[in-house]
Amino acid sequence: MARAKPELVRLHELTHGQFADFFALLGEKTRGATREGKPYFTCRFRDAKRTAALMVWNDGPWYELCERVWQVGQFFKLRGTYGESERFGPQLEIQNIRPLLEADKADGFDLSQFIECSRFNSGEMFAALLDLSEKQIADGGLRKLVRTLLERYAEPLQRLPATLNKFHPFAGGLLEHTLSVTRNCLLLADKYQAEYPNLKPPLNRDLLVAGAILHDIGRVVEFNQDLLTPQPTIPGRLFGHLFLGRDLIRDTARELGDVNPELVQLLEHILIAHLNLPEWGSPRLPLVPECLILHHADDLDAKLEMYARCLTRDQAAGPFTDRDPVLGRHLFKGRSV
Amino acid sequence: MARAKPELVRLHELTHGQFADFFALLGEKTRGATREGKPYFTCRFRDAKRTAALMVWNDGPWYELCERVWQVGQFFKLRGTYGESERFGPQLEIQNIRPLLEADKADGFDLSQFIECSRFNSGEMFAALLDLSEKQIADGGLRKLVRTLLERYAEPLQRLPATLNKFHPFAGGLLEHTLSVTRNCLLLADKYQAEYPNLKPPLNRDLLVAGAILHDIGRVVEFNQDLLTPQPTIPGRLFGHLFLGRDLIRDTARELGDVNPELVQLLEHILIAHLNLPEWGSPRLPLVPECLILHHADDLDAKLEMYARCLTRDQAAGPFTDRDPVLGRHLFKGRSV
Amino acid sequence: MARAKPELVRLHELTHGQFADFFALLGEKTRGATREGKPYFTCRFRDAKRTAALMVWNDGPWYELCERVWQVGQFFKLRGTYGESERFGPQLEIQNIRPLLEADKADGFDLSQFIECSRFNSGEMFAALLDLSEKQIADGGLRKLVRTLLERYAEPLQRLPATLNKFHPFAGGLLEHTLSVTRNCLLLADKYQAEYPNLKPPLNRDLLVAGAILHDIGRVVEFNQDLLTPQPTIPGRLFGHLFLGRDLIRDTARELGDVNPELVQLLEHILIAHLNLPEWGSPRLPLVPECLILHHADDLDAKLEMYARCLTRDQAAGPFTDRDPVLGRHLFKGRSV
Amino acid sequence: MARAKPELVRLHELTHGQFADFFALLGEKTRGATREGKPYFTCRFRDAKRTAALMVWNDGPWYELCERVWQVGQFFKLRGTYGESERFGPQLEIQNIRPLLEADKADGFDLSQFIECSRFNSGEMFAALLDLSEKQIADGGLRKLVRTLLERYAEPLQRLPATLNKFHPFAGGLLEHTLSVTRNCLLLADKYQAEYPNLKPPLNRDLLVAGAILHDIGRVVEFNQDLLTPQPTIPGRLFGHLFLGRDLIRDTARELGDVNPELVQLLEHILIAHLNLPEWGSPRLPLVPECLILHHADDLDAKLEMYARCLTRDQAAGPFTDRDPVLGRHLFKGRSV
Amino acid sequence: MARAKPELVRLHELTHGQFADFFALLGEKTRGATREGKPYFTCRFRDAKRTAALMVWNDGPWYELCERVWQVGQFFKLRGTYGESERFGPQLEIQNIRPLLEADKADGFDLSQFIECSRFNSGEMFAALLDLSEKQIADGGLRKLVRTLLERYAEPLQRLPATLNKFHPFAGGLLEHTLSVTRNCLLLADKYQAEYPNLKPPLNRDLLVAGAILHDIGRVVEFNQDLLTPQPTIPGRLFGHLFLGRDLIRDTARELGDVNPELVQLLEHILIAHLNLPEWGSPRLPLVPECLILHHADDLDAKLEMYARCLTRDQAAGPFTDRDPVLGRHLFKGRSV
Amino acid sequence: MARAKPELVRLHELTHGQFADFFALLGEKTRGATREGKPYFTCRFRDAKRTAALMVWNDGPWYELCERVWQVGQFFKLRGTYGESERFGPQLEIQNIRPLLEADKADGFDLSQFIECSRFNSGEMFAALLDLSEKQIADGGLRKLVRTLLERYAEPLQRLPATLNKFHPFAGGLLEHTLSVTRNCLLLADKYQAEYPNLKPPLNRDLLVAGAILHDIGRVVEFNQDLLTPQPTIPGRLFGHLFLGRDLIRDTARELGDVNPELVQLLEHILIAHLNLPEWGSPRLPLVPECLILHHADDLDAKLEMYARCLTRDQAAGPFTDRDPVLGRHLFKGRSV
Repeated sequence: MARAKPELVRLHELTHGQFADFFALLGEKTRGATREGKPYFTCRFRDAKRTAALMVWNDGPWYELCERVWQVGQFFKLRGTYGESERFGPQLEIQNIRPLLEADKADGFDLSQFIECSRFNSGEMFAALLDLSEKQIADGGLRKLVRTLLERYAEPLQRLPATLNKFHPFAGGLLEHTLSVTRNCLLLADKYQAEYPNLKPPLNRDLLVAGAILHDIGRVVEFNQDLLTPQPTIPGRLFGHLFLGRDLIRDTARELGDVNPELVQLLEHILIAHLNLPEWGSPRLPLVPECLILHHADDLDAKLEMYARCLTRDQAAGPFTDRDPVLGRHLFKGRSV
Repeated sequence: MARAKPELVRLHELTHGQFADFFALLGEKTRGATREGKPYFTCRFRDAKRTAALMVWNDGPWYELCERVWQVGQFFKLRGTYGESERFGPQLEIQNIRPLLEADKADGFDLSQFIECSRFNSGEMFAALLDLSEKQIADGGLRKLVRTLLERYAEPLQRLPATLNKFHPFAGGLLEHTLSVTRNCLLLADKYQAEYPNLKPPLNRDLLVAGAILHDIGRVVEFNQDLLTPQPTIPGRLFGHLFLGRDLIRDTARELGDVNPELVQLLEHILIAHLNLPEWGSPRLPLVPECLILHHADDLDAKLEMYARCLTRDQAAGPFTDRDPVLGRHLFKGRSV
Repeated sequence: MARAKPELVRLHELTHGQFADFFALLGEKTRGATREGKPYFTCRFRDAKRTAALMVWNDGPWYELCERVWQVGQFFKLRGTYGESERFGPQLEIQNIRPLLEADKADGFDLSQFIECSRFNSGEMFAALLDLSEKQIADGGLRKLVRTLLERYAEPLQRLPATLNKFHPFAGGLLEHTLSVTRNCLLLADKYQAEYPNLKPPLNRDLLVAGAILHDIGRVVEFNQDLLTPQPTIPGRLFGHLFLGRDLIRDTARELGDVNPELVQLLEHILIAHLNLPEWGSPRLPLVPECLILHHADDLDAKLEMYARCLTRDQAAGPFTDRDPVLGRHLFKGRSV
Repeated sequence: MARAKPELVRLHELTHGQFADFFALLGEKTRGATREGKPYFTCRFRDAKRTAALMVWNDGPWYELCERVWQVGQFFKLRGTYGESERFGPQLEIQNIRPLLEADKADGFDLSQFIECSRFNSGEMFAALLDLSEKQIADGGLRKLVRTLLERYAEPLQRLPATLNKFHPFAGGLLEHTLSVTRNCLLLADKYQAEYPNLKPPLNRDLLVAGAILHDIGRVVEFNQDLLTPQPTIPGRLFGHLFLGRDLIRDTARELGDVNPELVQLLEHILIAHLNLPEWGSPRLPLVPECLILHHADDLDAKLEMYARCLTRDQAAGPFTDRDPVLGRHLFKGRSV
Repeated sequence: MARAKPELVRLHELTHGQFADFFALLGEKTRGATREGKPYFTCRFRDAKRTAALMVWNDGPWYELCERVWQVGQFFKLRGTYGESERFGPQLEIQNIRPLLEADKADGFDLSQFIECSRFNSGEMFAALLDLSEKQIADGGLRKLVRTLLERYAEPLQRLPATLNKFHPFAGGLLEHTLSVTRNCLLLADKYQAEYPNLKPPLNRDLLVAGAILHDIGRVVEFNQDLLTPQPTIPGRLFGHLFLGRDLIRDTARELGDVNPELVQLLEHILIAHLNLPEWGSPRLPLVPECLILHHADDLDAKLEMYARCLTRDQAAGPFTDRDPVLGRHLFKGRSV
Repeated sequence: MARAKPELVRLHELTHGQFADFFALLGEKTRGATREGKPYFTCRFRDAKRTAALMVWNDGPWYELCERVWQVGQFFKLRGTYGESERFGPQLEIQNIRPLLEADKADGFDLSQFIECSRFNSGEMFAALLDLSEKQIADGGLRKLVRTLLERYAEPLQRLPATLNKFHPFAGGLLEHTLSVTRNCLLLADKYQAEYPNLKPPLNRDLLVAGAILHDIGRVVEFNQDLLTPQPTIPGRLFGHLFLGRDLIRDTARELGDVNPELVQLLEHILIAHLNLPEWGSPRLPLVPECLILHHADDLDAKLEMYARCLTRDQAAGPFTDRDPVLGRHLFKGRSV
C-alpha cells in the first residue's frame, strides 16, 4: 500500500530518511555497468543547494524512461526518500517521478530555488544602480553613456554572477557587487575630495562613479546565457572582461557621439587598470588616483563577500572555519564580541 | 659699502641671484681640501624645502668660526645671495651670519619652517581623533584603552611622520594618516554593517574603530625623538612597529585591568595582520573581516597620499609626472577633466 | 565453535589474514547507507601506525552497541581477523569487542602504542635539556628565565610534536628537536667563538643557548592538549608561535624581575627572527650573528629529520624513495656506501 | 554453447558490450579482499591507448592461474566482452585468456600497439638526423663527434620519449623533437646569418646544428630501458640530462681526440644553457647568440607539440578544449578559419 | 693667426685633440654658476653616436649668443678642438659656431647622422613588408586589412624604433624588427604546416603572417613624432601598444567591412597575447598555436638584436663584453670559431 | 730646503696631513683634460685598504715620467703628504716617487700589504686541511682523490678569495672558508651519526668530509691568476664553479682509477647540489642527507663571515651598522652583552 501523499519539501531541506515530494533538476545522467556487467544509470538531481544521486538499475522500474526520455537540464517532480551515505553521499530512493508540468508553477515550483541567488532583489538593485547613475553623475554625456550601457545590458547584469567561483558566485552577484562598489566609491570620493581640496588635477567624482558602475561591465559579454552555470564565451576567453568592457565603452561612446573624449579615455583607463597590479591580472598600472580608489572599493567588496560567505556556510566544529579554498585560510568565528 | 638691509625671506623662496636675510639650519658640515691641499668646509644650510651649500674657504672670513663654533643642528640667521648652479646645485654667498637669538622668534623665526609638516594642524587632528575615540567606541573598557594610549603618546603622535620616506613622510603625517584611516573605517563599517546585517559573528564597529586608531601606534616607539629626521630606535629595528604596537596594547590593557580580553585579543590580531599579505610584511593573515576593512582603509589612504604628493610636486614637462620612485610609475596629470 | 584464544598482537603488526586479540582506538565512526538504503556504520580503529576499518551492518551483531555506546576517542579490546583490500584498504572482521578495562593496563595495554612518539624518552630528553640550561648558561638571570619556562611548560614540551605535519610530527618531537638544536648551537658557538675571537660585539654563547632552548617555546601555547592530534588554539592561529613565544619570555622576565633587559631584548629578537627570511615566515631579518647560527641549527635539524623519516618509512621499489610530499623530491636510498 | 569465434580487435577500439579477441599487456595485478573477506585480484590489461580492469574472483575460473602464473609485463590473448562503467571505468569479462604465443606475431600481434609512438617512423627519422649531421656540419671534427654520439646511442634515441609527461611523451618522441629542433635551427641560422652578416664573432652554423642535434642527448642516459614507461636512472636523478649530455660530449670528444676544443667548449655551453633562464632549469645564462636560437627552436617545438596533442585528443563539448594540465589553459578549437 | 680651414669631420669620428669642422645638434643648454657666482652655460652638442660638452663662460665670446639665440633642438656648424677628460668626458673648445644653413645640406650635412638608424633602408624594408603582405596572405579581406594599416601608418612605421631602450632602439627599428619577425613566421609556418598536416583546426598561415606584420602596430600610436627621442603619447601610457594595436585592427576592419570576422577576432587575440606570459606583460595566454609561433618569432628576434648590438659595440678588454644592462650578463666574444 | 727624511708608514695608516714615505701600487692611470684643455693624469695609488689619488699636471714635475714610464700594476715608493677631501676623497701631494727596488723588500716592502688577506696563514690553513683529509677520511681511494686535488691546486687554493664580493672576498678566503666548512661538517657529522644510528643508508662521514673539502674546488679554475683582482676565466663564465668542480673530481677519479665509483658519484652529486635550492643557483635538489648538512655548514659559514666583516668595518654612528649592501640590512652592534 502506498504511503499517504507526503508534503512538498525543498530538496535541500530534506533530512536523512525523510519521505517527501520535491522538485529537482536532472543535472547529470551517466551510464554504468556493475561488476557483473549489468547496465545502470547514475542520475544526479539537484536544487540550488544540494545534489543527490538516484541509481537507476536496469531491472528497476525507471530504467527505460531514464534511458529514453529523461534529459539533462529538465525539471522533475519526485516522490521518495532521501538518505545520506558516507561512501555514496546524498542518495534518493523514489516511488514516483515525472517531468515538470505547467501546473506545478502554481503548485510551488520556483525556478529560483534551483539557482543560487543574491540576497537582494535584482530588480531593486538595478533600479538603485540606475538611480545612482542618474543622480550622482553630473556630466550629461557621461551619464548618458552609463545609462545606455545599463539599459542595454540590464538582463545579463541582473542574471549573472560576478565571477564563477571566486566572489559573488551566484545569480545577481554581478549586480550586487557593482552596486556595493559604487556605493563604496561614493563614500570615498566625497571623503577624499574634502581631504584633498587643492589636488591638481582634482578628483573627478563623475569619473569615479561611472568607473564603479562600469568596472565589470565586460562580464555581460564574457559569459553566456546558461542560467545555471554560465560559461565563458569565445570573446570571453580570447580577450577577458577588461578588454571587452572597454570595447563596450568605446563603441557606445562613439555611437552616442556627444561624450567628452577625455572622460571616455580616463574611464577606459580606470576600467582596464582597476585590478591594480600585473600579478593580479591588471594589464596597466593605475595612473590616476580615481583608479586607485576604485581598486580598493572593488577589492574590499569582493574579499568581504568571500569572508561573509565562508563564515555563513561553515559547519566546522571549533572556533575556526574549515580552510576556505579561495582565501587559503581558516577564519575565526568563535568569538562572542 | 654695505648694501641696504634686505628683507627677511624664507630660504626656499629665494630666487636665483636674490640678496636677502633668512634663517637656516646647519644640516651638515664637512671638511675638505682643494687639489692644492688647502682646507675648507662645505656647510649645508636648509629649511623644510631647500638645502643650499656654503663653501667656507680657509682664506675667507668665516673659516675659524665655522671650524670652532658652528654646530650641526644649530639655527642661524644669514645675509647673502642665493644662486643655483648646474654642477653644484643651490649655493650661498654670505655677507653675514650669526647663531639664532631668542629675539628672532619674535622677529619671524618659525621652527615649523624647517620641518616639513602636515597640511593640517596637529592639535586639531589630535582633538578630532580623541573625539572619535570617545564618541564612536561604545564599549567602555575598549574606549578607555584607546584614550589611555592616545593621551600617553600624544606628543610623538603629533610629531612623527607615518613613515620615513614612503607615505605621509612629514611631521604630523602619522596623525593625519591615522585620522583619515579611522574615518575611512567608520564609513565602511556603517556601510557593511547595513549590507551584511545577519553576519555571524557580526561586524564589530568598536573593534574596527579602535583598530584604526591604534593600527600604527607602534610607530611612537619605533622612531626616536629627532625632530628633523626621526631614526629607528633599537626596539624599532629589532621588532618593528607591529610587535611594538601590540605590546603597547597588551601592556596597557593589563594595566587597566577592565578591558574585555576577547576584544583585546581581536584588537591585537587586527593590528598585527592589517598589512594583509606576508609579501607586504604581514606576519599573519587576517582571520576576521574587520581586519580586511582596516587593511583597505589603510592601504588606500597611504597610496592616495603618495599619488597626491607626486602630482602636487611634480615639475615635469608634458602630460605625465616624472617617474615616482616609490610608486614606480609616471602619473597622468595632463587632463582637463 | 569459537577458535582458541589468540595471542595479543599490536594492530599495526597484524598480517593479512591473521586472527588475534588487539587493542585499538576508535578514531572515527560514520553513519552510512547502502544503495538499498540499509544503514550501517564505518568505524575506523587505529594504533600509532595503522588504521583499519570495521563495517558495522545493521543486521549484524554490533550495530546497536556501535550506535548507542561506542565513542570516538575510546579504547577497545578486539578479537578478530585483519585483512587488506586494494579497494577498501585495511579491514577488520571481528568476533568480539569490548571497551578497555582498567585491568588491561596490566595486561599489555600501553597508551604510547597509540601515539606516534619520539625514539627518545621524553623524561630523559627533558632532563638533558634542563641540564644544558643549568650548565651552559653562565648568566644567572638568563639561566633562571630559561629554567622557569622549561619547568612551567614541562608537560606540553614533553608531549607535543614540533609541527603537525612538517618535521618531528610526533609526540615528544618538540622536545627532541629542541634538544638537538641546542646541541647544534653549542657545537657551533664554541667553534665560531674560537674562529672569531675578536668580533665586536663578541658572540654571546649564553644568548645562543637560551635562544636555542626557547626558539619554539611558543608551540606550548600554539597547540591544545589533544593528545592524539593537537589542534591550534585561538591564540595559536591569531598570532602564531613566534609572537606567543616572545610573550612568554617577556612576561616571565618581567615576573622574575632580575633578568638583564638587554639579554631579554636580544633573546626576543633571535626568537622572532630565527626563521631568517620573510618568505619562510620570519617577520624580521636576523640582525645579530647569534640569530643566524640559531637559524641554521634549527633548519638543518628540521630538514634532516624529514630526510631520515622519508628514508626510514619509504617502501618504493627501486633506488629512490617515493616523492616526499613536503620535501618535494625523491630521495636516493639505493647506495651501498 | 560457446559463441562463434569473434574477430580480432584492438583493445582500445572495442566498444561498450563488444565481444571480441584481443591482445593485451598485464600492467598491474593487485590482491584484494571483499568486505566479506574473500580474496580476489584486480588485474589491469592495457594497450597503448586504453587500460581495462578484469576482476578475478576466488570462486571464478581464473583465480589460480592468476595467482600463480600471470606476470605483470606479460602479454596475453584474451576473448571476452568489454564494458564501461561510470564507477569502475573500463571493465573486462572474459571467456578465455592465454599468454602470448610466438605464432601470434604472425597473427596480428604488434608490440607497437602497446606503446604510444611517434607519428613518424623512427628509422627514417634517425636516418634523416644522421643525414643532417653529415651534410650540414662543415667542420670535420665536430661532424665526427656528432655522428659518433648518434650512432652510439641510436637505440635509445629511437626508443625514448622526449619527456615522460610534458612534451613528446611517447616512444620516438625524443627523436621526433630532436629532428624538428634541428630543422628549426637550420632555418633560423640561415636567416640570421644573412641578417647579421657582419656580426663579430659571426654566427657559427656548425655549432648551432651540432647543438640542436645533441641538445637533449643526455636523455639517453637519464632514462632506463623500460620500454613501456622509462624510469629515471640513478645518474638521471642525481645529475639530470644537462650534466649527463655534457659528459657525453666531453668524454667522446676526448676519446676522438681531434675535435676543435673551442668548438667543444661552446657546444657544451649551449647544451647546458639552452633552457635559457634559471627559473626554467637552466644552470647558466646563454652567453652566445647560437644558444638563444637553440632555446627558441627547442621551446617552440616542445610547446607546439603540447598544443597539437591537446587539440587532437580533446573531446570537450564547446569551442574550447578542457584545461590542459601542463599548459594550464583551455585552447581554442571552435574556429572555422 | 687663424689656423687653416680644417676638414669636415663627423663629431663622433673626432679624435682627442683633433681640430676640425663638424655639424652638431644642440641637445641641452643648462645655466650654471661657478663657486664664485659667475654664470655660465653648459651646452651639450651631439650627433647619433657621441655627445660632447661646450662650456660657455660669461666672460667668453659666445655667452650672449648662447643665452639669447641658441635653441635646444637646433643644428649648428662648429669649428674647434675635441678632447676627452676623465672627469668631464668629451669636451669641445670652439673657434667658431653658427646655425645650420640651407646650403650646408649640399655641403655634407646629413640629418641621419644625428639619429641612430637601422642598418637597412626604411623605404626598402617597407616595400619588402608590403610585398610580403601582398604575396603571402591569401585571404583577400585580411590582405586588404593589413595593407590598409601599413599604408596608413607608413610614415611612423619607417621612422620609429621598436622600443625606446630594449631592442631595436633606433629609427627604423620597428620596421626592421617587424620584417624580420614576419620572415621568421613564414619559415616556421611552412615548416610546422608540413609537420602537423592533420592538425584540427589547421595552422592558418594567413593569420600568422598578418599577426606578424601587425604584432607591434600599436607602437605607431604609442609614441609621438619626436624624431630624436620619441616619447609615449597619452594613449601610449594609459593603454600601451597591445590595446592600441588591437584598436587599430578593430576599427580598420569595421571600416573596411568585408574582413572575415573570425579572422579579425583571431588576429586581435594573437596580437594581445603574443607576449605569452603575464609576467612578460601579456594580458592573456595564447590559446591558438599561431600565437605561440608568433611569440617565439618575436622574442628571438628582439633578443638576438640585443646580443648583436652588445657584441658589436662592446669595447671591454678580455674575452667577455661588459655586463649588458638589459640582458644582465657578460656575453662571450673571445672565440675564434 | 727639503724636510727631514720621514718615517716609512703604510698608506692606509696615514692621517690627514701626514708627511711620510710609503709603498703603493699604481692601480689606475687615466688621461684627462682641464676645462681649458690642458692635459693631465689622474693616478690612483693603493695598498690593501686604501686608494688615494695623485693628480699629475702637465706643467708639474712628474708629467713626463707618468706618461712614458709608470705602468699600472707596478709598485712605487713615494714620499709626500696625504690628505682627505670631501669632494675628491683621499689625495696625495708628493715630493718624490720611484719604482720599487729589489732592496725595498729588505727595507719593509711586503706584498701582502697590498692584497687584502685572510686573518689566517695560508700555509697553516692548507696544512690543516690536508691533515683533516688524511685523518678524517677512512676510505683510501677517496682520501687519495681528495689529497691529489688539494696538492694539485695548492697554489690557487691558498691564493684565491672564496668569492669576488660576497663572502670571504680576500686572498686566502677560499681556503679559510673551506677549512671552516669542513670543521662544521665534522662536528655535525659526528653529532647526527650519533642521533640517527639506525639510518638506512647510514650517514657517510667520509663522503661528507670529502664533499666539504672539495665543495668549492671549482673556484680554482673559475678564476684566473690575477693576484689583486682575480677575474673569471672563460670556463668560469661558460660553466661556473659547480660544473668545473665536478669535472675536476670526475677527471681525477678516472685518472687515479681506484676510487669507489659509487662514492665518486655521490661526491659529484653533493658538490653540484650543495647550494640547495634552484633559486640559490643549485641545478639539482639534494637527494642525500649529507648534501643537506654540507649546505648548512657552507651557508652558515659564508653568511657569518659577512656579518663579522660588516660589524668589524662599520663606522656608522648609532647602535646599528650602515646597511650592508649584500646582506641588505643594518646589523645591531650597540649592545653591551
